[in-house]
Amino acid sequence: MKKHLLALVILGAFASAAPAQSNVTLYGTIDAGLIKRTDQRVAVGKRANNTLGFRGTEDLGNGLKALVHLEIRYEPDTGTNEIGANGAQRPLFQGQSRVGLQGAFGMVRLGRGLTALQESIIKFEPFHGLPHTAGFYTDLAIAGYTSEPLNMAGNSKNRFSNALWYNSPEVGGFQLNATISTREANGGPAVVGRGTPALPQYPANSQASTNPYSISATFKRGPAAFMAAMERNAVETDLWSVAASWYVIPSLNLMASYQRQDEEHTRLFNQETRAWVVGLNWTLGPGKLLAGFGRKKPDGLPSTRQLSIGYEYSLSKRTYLYADASNKKNQTDARYYAVGINHAF
Amino acid sequence: MKKHLLALVILGAFASAAPAQSNVTLYGTIDAGLIKRTDQRVAVGKRANNTLGFRGTEDLGNGLKALVHLEIRYEPDTGTNEIGANGAQRPLFQGQSRVGLQGAFGMVRLGRGLTALQESIIKFEPFHGLPHTAGFYTDLAIAGYTSEPLNMAGNSKNRFSNALWYNSPEVGGFQLNATISTREANGGPAVVGRGTPALPQYPANSQASTNPYSISATFKRGPAAFMAAMERNAVETDLWSVAASWYVIPSLNLMASYQRQDEEHTRLFNQETRAWVVGLNWTLGPGKLLAGFGRKKPDGLPSTRQLSIGYEYSLSKRTYLYADASNKKNQTDARYYAVGINHAF
Amino acid sequence: MKKHLLALVILGAFASAAPAQSNVTLYGTIDAGLIKRTDQRVAVGKRANNTLGFRGTEDLGNGLKALVHLEIRYEPDTGTNEIGANGAQRPLFQGQSRVGLQGAFGMVRLGRGLTALQESIIKFEPFHGLPHTAGFYTDLAIAGYTSEPLNMAGNSKNRFSNALWYNSPEVGGFQLNATISTREANGGPAVVGRGTPALPQYPANSQASTNPYSISATFKRGPAAFMAAMERNAVETDLWSVAASWYVIPSLNLMASYQRQDEEHTRLFNQETRAWVVGLNWTLGPGKLLAGFGRKKPDGLPSTRQLSIGYEYSLSKRTYLYADASNKKNQTDARYYAVGINHAF
Repeated sequence: MKKHLLALVILGAFASAAPAQSNVTLYGTIDAGLIKRTDQRVAVGKRANNTLGFRGTEDLGNGLKALVHLEIRYEPDTGTNEIGANGAQRPLFQGQSRVGLQGAFGMVRLGRGLTALQESIIKFEPFHGLPHTAGFYTDLAIAGYTSEPLNMAGNSKNRFSNALWYNSPEVGGFQLNATISTREANGGPAVVGRGTPALPQYPANSQASTNPYSISATFKRGPAAFMAAMERNAVETDLWSVAASWYVIPSLNLMASYQRQDEEHTRLFNQETRAWVVGLNWTLGPGKLLAGFGRKKPDGLPSTRQLSIGYEYSLSKRTYLYADASNKKNQTDARYYAVGINHAF
Repeated sequence: MKKHLLALVILGAFASAAPAQSNVTLYGTIDAGLIKRTDQRVAVGKRANNTLGFRGTEDLGNGLKALVHLEIRYEPDTGTNEIGANGAQRPLFQGQSRVGLQGAFGMVRLGRGLTALQESIIKFEPFHGLPHTAGFYTDLAIAGYTSEPLNMAGNSKNRFSNALWYNSPEVGGFQLNATISTREANGGPAVVGRGTPALPQYPANSQASTNPYSISATFKRGPAAFMAAMERNAVETDLWSVAASWYVIPSLNLMASYQRQDEEHTRLFNQETRAWVVGLNWTLGPGKLLAGFGRKKPDGLPSTRQLSIGYEYSLSKRTYLYADASNKKNQTDARYYAVGINHAF
Repeated sequence: MKKHLLALVILGAFASAAPAQSNVTLYGTIDAGLIKRTDQRVAVGKRANNTLGFRGTEDLGNGLKALVHLEIRYEPDTGTNEIGANGAQRPLFQGQSRVGLQGAFGMVRLGRGLTALQESIIKFEPFHGLPHTAGFYTDLAIAGYTSEPLNMAGNSKNRFSNALWYNSPEVGGFQLNATISTREANGGPAVVGRGTPALPQYPANSQASTNPYSISATFKRGPAAFMAAMERNAVETDLWSVAASWYVIPSLNLMASYQRQDEEHTRLFNQETRAWVVGLNWTLGPGKLLAGFGRKKPDGLPSTRQLSIGYEYSLSKRTYLYADASNKKNQTDARYYAVGINHAF
């Protein structure tokens, strides 16, 4: 084995400098830990998305660049593609699959990925926008909204397929981001909406009744950052969001966001859902404290409250250990405890 | 196990140079654009195959080389594996998965990939043998023939699984290529053929009734190239093809092909299908004009006519923008327009 | 976002060196050959696992290292993910998906992979623990036992999902290895066991009735190596194994193993299965001879006998040709012949 490696090193020197011919960077993250949920046995699970990505840029001259970004998502505990609701396997490149151009005009991309609103809100969510239970991103930070109601069952709630992205240059701290999707059917499940199970408002594999779109504006000034965003999905549900963050001191970032979801196109009652999240990231030497509290309230329905605390201890720039504790209260309490490791490569 | 750990330690020492120790080249292409079809809304789609590949060669001495080639295919607009008919996901390595040896005797490969005929005809098809609607490759250039009628539903029409490839050396401009497959069942759908839906000629997951094989001979002389090929698939359908191309001037390549498909083993009527395609590739500075016209005629059935024009504008050796327009007329007109970007990495 | 773009710009500037910025090593193997089985036609198949892996280590200082290992498994003859029983596709990272830490204390890993017993027994199996028919690993060398009876249908018989691994340092030739899994349900099929098809002992998607665990102790001294191991799976089936190997001369390694499987938790009769395997690996210049004989005997049921001989001819450190012949006799003879090529990259 050692000889084998030695041979590889030599080959790497010149003969097979093959990989150096490539124009794409391979990267990824792996995250696994032990999780305890109320009324459930200890399980092996994840805190962060697990990614294996391929990213490249090509200088086309005149300040123009071509971009490609493909990102596999997977589950280390079972070795499968990323799993969504009901155990459905998500697309191979669940993270994103986009090609584009970048220049003085900004950046234009085509493919599948997080919407403009979803890409922006992450910076204002105290758990890095991670998908795990202690985080607020997948529920409260978007008021329970989903960006892809007509996409394949089990898909994430944060992406557009068949979409076009535009990101403006950052001018005086201000940036505009927009995403618009076609109305293509994506093999999604039926959405009953204002119909009946027998006669759903959107039958299985429906086309969108509008072009889904997402817009966000961000503004940075010194220690402060602000966001205002609006999104409409394929079943004409709207999400409004405003958010702000402030570095009180370089090691302490406070953040807050307010969201409102409007489902009047698919609901007769309980059409409005309001939610807010406040939180902080506090760097303490090699450690970082994450904390947040939030509330979600659909009108006419009981509210959901969530309190989460997390701690990250860095073993290096690429590797950290973490511990999280969370309580989510709707009718009942749902407690969640996790310890694990996160490694970037 | 200790050796394994030792290996990891060593790898750790060379961590930053680790990929250079690999013997495989990572490469790929991503293509996405906007497509408008007759009676359909604008969609995000592709013009070229989207690939993420792993390719390696090892010098074994005495002019002998070992070869490996694995090629993932995917859809950027939805992030999934390549999708075939009826939305079926194709194999992870849909592009190809082959291992082989190359030497003075030529090249021998085992695995799955394009057949000898399909690999050869591409050079005589005016749209680079791309799978999109404006191209002729998937239908007219092969007279509607499929290489894998008994493979999994949704598979491409151009490959053999469980096959052995031989490519001769090029001698005086002449090269011989051959592919032969085993008769293994591949979990394919039933082929009714001369049977009935209740009693199909080939039930689901049938074995081939013959060893599928494919042979092509190519000849190059100065500005001219010629091909003659014959293939028989798993249900004993035959395809004959002859093709020629000619560089009138270095920037202008004219090409033409004639094909005949014989389905007498599975049909009582309309057994013969004849097709021809003529086209050109014209390089104009950073631009390239693609144009083609073709006709497919199954005896006793109406003919299909296709006219396609495309233009590629290169931003670099690896990136180009394109625009295509096509009209395919059978009983009715099917118009197709596309603009997009293609980036190789 | 701008910073992200900046990062991409920088990556672009160093494009040709981009892969060197990664911290993961890409590696793999591809194996394909021609196989003839009793009463079956010649098929294209594999002898070894086909892998495409991503492996990385990070030095954390103080002798501590972070480890990541992801391994794709695939079938070159059809281009799919690795296929299990009944054609079921296995997880993308069927090989393994683990993250961990290594230091003076040994190595701790979380995720999915071979159990401690399965990782250890490989060194005492005369066909490198390869999964093919001529080898003993998948049946006799583990007395027909499976490590994952409640995992997804078609999964291998050798792994734990949702598990924690510990490997001690090697001290005086002695090493201890342990794996323990959670009791999470993994979407597996029903296990009838002592129940009935209508009322199975373990219904589909059951949780384990115990925490599956696996322990192995190995000892190396000069030319000799020994192993003792015990494992209990999710349906409380036990496997005991002892094995030894001895380098008579540096080029000749003799090996033997004895296994006992106890299924009393799920069977009323034929609860005990005993098996043994003896074999050798003999290096002869560029060639290597593999040979083995084994027997499996469930009490009250007929025994299975297997005799296998293989020969490997190295074209390089990374590439070899092989030929295998095997006869497995239960009620009837099952003969198996294979020739092929194995290439590591």
